[in-house]
Amino acid sequence: MSLLVVGSVAFDAIETPFGKTDKIVGGAASYIALAASYFTKNIDLVSVIGDDFPQDFLSTLKSSGVSLEGLQVKKGEKSFFWKGKYHNDLNSRDTLDTQLNVLADFQPVVPPSAKNAEFLMLGNLVPAVQRSVIEQMASRPKLIVMDTMNFWMDVAMEELKKTIAMVDVLAINDSEARQLSGEYSLVKASQIILNMGPSILIIKKGEHGALLFNKEEVFYAPALPLEEVFDPTGAGDTFAGGFIGYLSKTRDISFENMKRAIIFGSAMASFTVERFGTERLLGLSAKDIEERVQEFIELVQFELV
Amino acid sequence: MSLLVVGSVAFDAIETPFGKTDKIVGGAASYIALAASYFTKNIDLVSVIGDDFPQDFLSTLKSSGVSLEGLQVKKGEKSFFWKGKYHNDLNSRDTLDTQLNVLADFQPVVPPSAKNAEFLMLGNLVPAVQRSVIEQMASRPKLIVMDTMNFWMDVAMEELKKTIAMVDVLAINDSEARQLSGEYSLVKASQIILNMGPSILIIKKGEHGALLFNKEEVFYAPALPLEEVFDPTGAGDTFAGGFIGYLSKTRDISFENMKRAIIFGSAMASFTVERFGTERLLGLSAKDIEERVQEFIELVQFELV
Repeated sequence: MSLLVVGSVAFDAIETPFGKTDKIVGGAASYIALAASYFTKNIDLVSVIGDDFPQDFLSTLKSSGVSLEGLQVKKGEKSFFWKGKYHNDLNSRDTLDTQLNVLADFQPVVPPSAKNAEFLMLGNLVPAVQRSVIEQMASRPKLIVMDTMNFWMDVAMEELKKTIAMVDVLAINDSEARQLSGEYSLVKASQIILNMGPSILIIKKGEHGALLFNKEEVFYAPALPLEEVFDPTGAGDTFAGGFIGYLSKTRDISFENMKRAIIFGSAMASFTVERFGTERLLGLSAKDIEERVQEFIELVQFELV
Repeated sequence: MSLLVVGSVAFDAIETPFGKTDKIVGGAASYIALAASYFTKNIDLVSVIGDDFPQDFLSTLKSSGVSLEGLQVKKGEKSFFWKGKYHNDLNSRDTLDTQLNVLADFQPVVPPSAKNAEFLMLGNLVPAVQRSVIEQMASRPKLIVMDTMNFWMDVAMEELKKTIAMVDVLAINDSEARQLSGEYSLVKASQIILNMGPSILIIKKGEHGALLFNKEEVFYAPALPLEEVFDPTGAGDTFAGGFIGYLSKTRDISFENMKRAIIFGSAMASFTVERFGTERLLGLSAKDIEERVQEFIELVQFELV
């Protein structure tokens, strides 16, 4: 398999200014795998769910080219559940409920078929759990991309830094980059973080786009100004899925190709936020994606005469 | 004269996390005129100062190609003074002192030589005062660009809308666009504001760049990620000055050329924030500006293979 995706497969209950949902399917790995499946059909998923999870969604993943051999189903247990409410600006949210359930003692097991994956995407999880996946690989992937969140910086910074030191690309948001580096300037923050191990840093800025840094270069991808952001849940994971999916498809990890991967990731994320949960991410056509990417090109294109 | 600039010429006292200044030269029109002077030497300035203003700075303006015929000097009176302190993130600030002084009853008088200016830049001022300048023009300028601020939306919304209805380009920041339109989505906000009169809306997003809208198209110019933002004062005015200066030089007001003008405006603003006040904006070379513009091109450039 060419791409291994690790992360949560879970339930979310979401409230935004535009409406609310009961339990719907969510979780970092769900968004990542679905987004990546538009670029490659060689995907392995490593995650854990309870026996309360809808078979429908698992069938959707399978028919999208995602192997579920590494998905543990815990009999008599419940899937991870998160409930949150977004504020009016959609840039901030309150967590109303978190039930770890099966995620509390998740021990990922990478199936043999996935131990030589060329691309490894570590969705947000306990840093030590992310690391145990890297350690199970039979050969070093061509590229390891890692997402994480401020929570681990608060409670497990040293563990987090150990995992960060082992990856090639770290993808975090601007406030996380500031917290991790202790620097407000994102340029300075990027250099500090790149000295922690990764050769590439992606700073996600939500509606303000994303920055791609290596030690010498920087690339700025805008976010598409949208008429309406309906539900931002999963936008960052979808972005990561589009990014790693495009790289898995093209098998080119140059900085130039990562720029293109960022644009594809941004395009995929712009779909996700148009509906609740994974709804908009299902059943996109190649033409839908192509047109959205074209909008990004037109958005930033200018020529100096 | 090809470009008429109207706005405050004033004193600022600024405190940032990096240091503080006593009274230094500031004011919207100072930044606008200086930035524009790198593109055109046919500039008229309409403003008012007291007799406390440093002759040095006026000489600098003159030698930069800015005619001061429309600059009123009030004997025995004091120039406008603003004192402010930026918070650690530099995105917000507190006003510590505002002394209107000569600006309290400012009646702009457009000199005969400027009444046929092709380009008119209205820096932030009382909306009725901005309007009185438009009304003094002998012929309708090819392009009128207007800046304003949230304060006028709070205290003089109807007056403000009358002035907005008379201009071609409105340049405001994202929170002002939301306040003026009553819409959180900047895409929706832009359409509401473009229905108020202007054919072009520029939404300035500080470190997140700027958006250029007409009724059919949108362009996103990033801001250069800077190692250090030293003092953001005047960044928006410098941006406006570079924008209108580039348009005055090229005399092309197409959407395509406005994209270029936005890039030049952003490049000029990226200099201003590197030092206190107007310091960095003095003595730039054509090569400095060219290199900075090149950095913007490299920042956003990607090619889909």
